[in-house]
Amino acid sequence: MPLADDCVFCRILKGEIPCTKIYEDDMVLAFLDIAPFNPGHTVIVPKEHQHSSTAIDPEYLKAIITVAPKIGAALMRATGAEGFNIFQNNGRVAGQTVPHVHFHVLPRFADDDVQITASTKKYGDFAEMNALADKVKAVLNK
Amino acid sequence: MPLADDCVFCRILKGEIPCTKIYEDDMVLAFLDIAPFNPGHTVIVPKEHQHSSTAIDPEYLKAIITVAPKIGAALMRATGAEGFNIFQNNGRVAGQTVPHVHFHVLPRFADDDVQITASTKKYGDFAEMNALADKVKAVLNK
Repeated sequence: MPLADDCVFCRILKGEIPCTKIYEDDMVLAFLDIAPFNPGHTVIVPKEHQHSSTAIDPEYLKAIITVAPKIGAALMRATGAEGFNIFQNNGRVAGQTVPHVHFHVLPRFADDDVQITASTKKYGDFAEMNALADKVKAVLNK
Repeated sequence: MPLADDCVFCRILKGEIPCTKIYEDDMVLAFLDIAPFNPGHTVIVPKEHQHSSTAIDPEYLKAIITVAPKIGAALMRATGAEGFNIFQNNGRVAGQTVPHVHFHVLPRFADDDVQITASTKKYGDFAEMNALADKVKAVLNK
């Protein structure tokens, strides 16, 4: 799918909106998030407009995931972070705010206030887990 | 690096500890997290013991990121989730609890209690962003 006129990330890719570039190649562009969870918070976007990672050509995902850890390591060196998260949200309920696939690379510090958490749920027993896994596998293997 | 004797994911890969398998190929194994944030929460692990995504052969990352959205889509179908997150934590400070690279695929529901959030930080001005970006690029381009 070509770049879209009404997508903020497509407009950045077209140079219509400025960004603070971290990295660029034929497949992806990485730039600083303007509303960062921590300083250095970087967004990596594919040079194709797709809403979801389920729809995009996997070659873009491979390009992103190859460079993401390199950016994470560079962010640690540049900011003094002690670790980093890579995350990608699909759907509004998952926290996706821009309908163009993007991966976050988030440097982490001991005293930051980032939350990636939930109360831990419990399965009733292994039979319940196996029944759920069977449903997932049935879809995957279609 | 070969599989490790004292790593829980290596022991699962060697069949010494059971798991509820979702998917397997030559490069990766995916199974249900036993302490799920939501039902269906799946972990994808490479068949090589490396602590960080910065250290592992990128071919493993490519294999993982190719299958992760397929698993996410299957989890949505199987659980009724409306979206999903893909995330990978590097370092204890980032929430990594098992020192073997793993990607989470987390189905999301409208009323779940999952938090992937922080207070939004602010850069002083574009000069501060550019200076940080220059430091990151200097490390990346070394």
